[in-house]
Amino acid sequence: MNGKLITGLVGRVLRTEGILLFLPGIVGLIYQEWRSALIFGVLAVCLILLSIPLVRIGAKNERKRMQMKEGFVIVAMSWILASFFGCLPFFFSGSFDGLIDSFFEAVSGFTTTGSTILRNVETLDKSMLFWRSFTHWIGGMGILVFILGLMPNLGGSSVQLMKAESPGVAPGKLVPRLSESSRILYGIYMVLTVVLILLLLLTGMPLFDSIVHAMGTAGTGGFSIKNASIGAYHSVSAEVIIAVFMLLFGVNFNIYYYLLKKQWDDVKGNGELKVYGAIVLISVILIVVDIMPQVGSFWESVRLAFFNVSTIITTTGYGTADFNLWPTFSKLILVGLMLVGACGGSTGGGMKVGRIIILCRAAGREASQIVHPNMVRSIKTDGRVIEDKTVREVLVFFFIYMLIIVGAALLVSLDGFDAESSVTAVIAAISNIGPGLGVVGPAGNFADFSGISKLILSFCMLAGRLELFPMLVLMSPSSWKKDF
Amino acid sequence: MNGKLITGLVGRVLRTEGILLFLPGIVGLIYQEWRSALIFGVLAVCLILLSIPLVRIGAKNERKRMQMKEGFVIVAMSWILASFFGCLPFFFSGSFDGLIDSFFEAVSGFTTTGSTILRNVETLDKSMLFWRSFTHWIGGMGILVFILGLMPNLGGSSVQLMKAESPGVAPGKLVPRLSESSRILYGIYMVLTVVLILLLLLTGMPLFDSIVHAMGTAGTGGFSIKNASIGAYHSVSAEVIIAVFMLLFGVNFNIYYYLLKKQWDDVKGNGELKVYGAIVLISVILIVVDIMPQVGSFWESVRLAFFNVSTIITTTGYGTADFNLWPTFSKLILVGLMLVGACGGSTGGGMKVGRIIILCRAAGREASQIVHPNMVRSIKTDGRVIEDKTVREVLVFFFIYMLIIVGAALLVSLDGFDAESSVTAVIAAISNIGPGLGVVGPAGNFADFSGISKLILSFCMLAGRLELFPMLVLMSPSSWKKDF
Repeated sequence: MNGKLITGLVGRVLRTEGILLFLPGIVGLIYQEWRSALIFGVLAVCLILLSIPLVRIGAKNERKRMQMKEGFVIVAMSWILASFFGCLPFFFSGSFDGLIDSFFEAVSGFTTTGSTILRNVETLDKSMLFWRSFTHWIGGMGILVFILGLMPNLGGSSVQLMKAESPGVAPGKLVPRLSESSRILYGIYMVLTVVLILLLLLTGMPLFDSIVHAMGTAGTGGFSIKNASIGAYHSVSAEVIIAVFMLLFGVNFNIYYYLLKKQWDDVKGNGELKVYGAIVLISVILIVVDIMPQVGSFWESVRLAFFNVSTIITTTGYGTADFNLWPTFSKLILVGLMLVGACGGSTGGGMKVGRIIILCRAAGREASQIVHPNMVRSIKTDGRVIEDKTVREVLVFFFIYMLIIVGAALLVSLDGFDAESSVTAVIAAISNIGPGLGVVGPAGNFADFSGISKLILSFCMLAGRLELFPMLVLMSPSSWKKDF
Repeated sequence: MNGKLITGLVGRVLRTEGILLFLPGIVGLIYQEWRSALIFGVLAVCLILLSIPLVRIGAKNERKRMQMKEGFVIVAMSWILASFFGCLPFFFSGSFDGLIDSFFEAVSGFTTTGSTILRNVETLDKSMLFWRSFTHWIGGMGILVFILGLMPNLGGSSVQLMKAESPGVAPGKLVPRLSESSRILYGIYMVLTVVLILLLLLTGMPLFDSIVHAMGTAGTGGFSIKNASIGAYHSVSAEVIIAVFMLLFGVNFNIYYYLLKKQWDDVKGNGELKVYGAIVLISVILIVVDIMPQVGSFWESVRLAFFNVSTIITTTGYGTADFNLWPTFSKLILVGLMLVGACGGSTGGGMKVGRIIILCRAAGREASQIVHPNMVRSIKTDGRVIEDKTVREVLVFFFIYMLIIVGAALLVSLDGFDAESSVTAVIAAISNIGPGLGVVGPAGNFADFSGISKLILSFCMLAGRLELFPMLVLMSPSSWKKDF
């Protein structure tokens, strides 16, 4: 492990966070929330001062070749520390019940989970609400991807960081230079966010609300500034726009780059996109049929089903209805979508559609190997052969994902909530959704869990957002042994 | 596909079942249940007559080399048809609500699941109760393993059949000749069963009850002849004896062979046995701590925890308490044990401890590959290297297992029961447990599910008992295409 390199890059992350903390400070000034503005300002200055020596330590080491494990450790530590410092405004605001609650909320923000421990969000200062949703926006695309876009070329290191932080099986490299790729991705991200803000304004949503909800949609986060979430606006057009944009932000961003470059074949040939679309369509149809007797009207059912399928598969977590009250069949479809998640290379969480495709192909290959034992088949997606190593990684990923869910659900169940609530709280955390079922359903929140459970759920959120391995490498004792 | 070979061997299975049907007939005569005795007698004769032409078709083909897929198809068809013909006594008895209910009960019997659709088992004829539990005894060790023990050598074919029917990653071949191996296994099985019957008699349990419950324990099935299951006897000694024997029948039977042969090193070096023991011990301790406040007494808690951990991890399903009323933590531990199951090569179900060990090792290898990218590590158990092909098979097995649970739970949830009941009903079926949680808890039964759900659960029971691939190969269209 190259400690200096790690320190330096983590320092850069904290410096960037310090600079970003001025933004909610400005929002505080605009809305004359002097106390909150002061908190953000002071924290911003402190964080920047703290980061100076750290960045200096790393300065000479940044051009050294980085190992994969160092990339993972940098990413994991950056996210934990960014969440810790990002939670301090909440802590000092006095609206949160102590440091653990504040940390939970910040992790939930950066990991774009959107689970809250607040029973009543509407009492919060506007600057606090802004910061809460802004963490979604930054976390969605990635803290380090953001920095890579700003930074002078890191040499060979940037690939490791990008791999460690970006979701999906094989993060695409759009152009040879990675800092260029980061800038393109953030550019697309920003444009889509601005378009969404404008559309929401057209529906009559106030400017502040539009900005905040657009950031939550873009990062597929899910924090709202209303207790009733998007349902509070009683606006069909806002619902439809947000539902469509959630789905758009759940698509691999490379697709938008291909569209810009008019590489139609790359778009048409994208299997993950097709399966993602098919899952959404089939889920909506099944839920409509299932909830129609309860809801009464066909169009109302379509509206509810579309919004909630979109919010769950993209792992956003905005709400317009309490799906906790739906029939079991629909609820289980939503739980299935929670596990599947969005496309790789998007801002969404979950296991990712691309992984599910590889898993199903691997299962099919195994079965056909029995029927035709002498046939050697390789697994292909989009016309390219998937390496056996990748297939094995995906299979192991699936097992570890399930193992963490079972282990964490056991620990969380000690709080005494029912099995449905305990298990779906963990799934909602690791897949970065927000709401689960039972007490953590759309009408509930995470306030009543114990401090230990909140820390376990925070771990799950981070493990899910960083796709398991960075957190596992950080915790593994063998990472910290002297290299041999 | 060699249709004649398949027909012949399935014919042999049916002929054997026909002969076995005389046994409950005799029980009927002893207890003067003339109607039931007649049903068993007539069915036995019919089945034997039906099997004669089938066996004749296969007669000349049995020495041909069998392909893996043919082995799977024979096993899958044998189990489905044996369950179908085995359900007819129930159907004609008039105590069951139609053919689907009877089929469900018979599948539950042969697969050693022990889920019942009867609300009141105590009204059944003794001969019917005997047949119900006898299917556990036959199904536990395997219908085809039974026949292999009786049959003249099948040439190369027997290996395929044994592989397809025996649980676990690598079914052991105790001695070079497989029919010899089968006889040894059934010999051990029979001796252990007789010892258990004698011990139960000593506790004061009536002879009939002892025989029936011993068969259910040996097959790790779980059908009882009392509505309150083992709890009905209010006998601590009977509970402890059954709990211990359930654990013994959950051990790989090769271990007993090694003990007989005094191959101590093979026993001591068995990693699966150690992990199995450790899981039981840890689960009992955790549950004792968790339920003690509710139960009150320490020894009572130990008694409850030990019996229920034993009944669930061995996938037997006998009951002494309604664990549905326990705290969520204990319930989730039991659900975890349901998925894990017993050891490979035992009569127990579930994914098997051996597979879980391989999964964990594979996960560990993947993580350490990141930390030390240049290290090539192979996975070992008991000092032997596990082939990469086997590791991949186990990983795929895990995914398909979960996929079937999710898919079946979705379909079963259409009956409108809560999520906990729907999901655990499916887990109880695929892992061949018996009871789940909620409406299918130890105090409930499967009577209220729809016919379709009962068929889906029957499929899950068969898929679980045969470890997925035989049922998948049977259903796969490509198995039935002309070979190329």
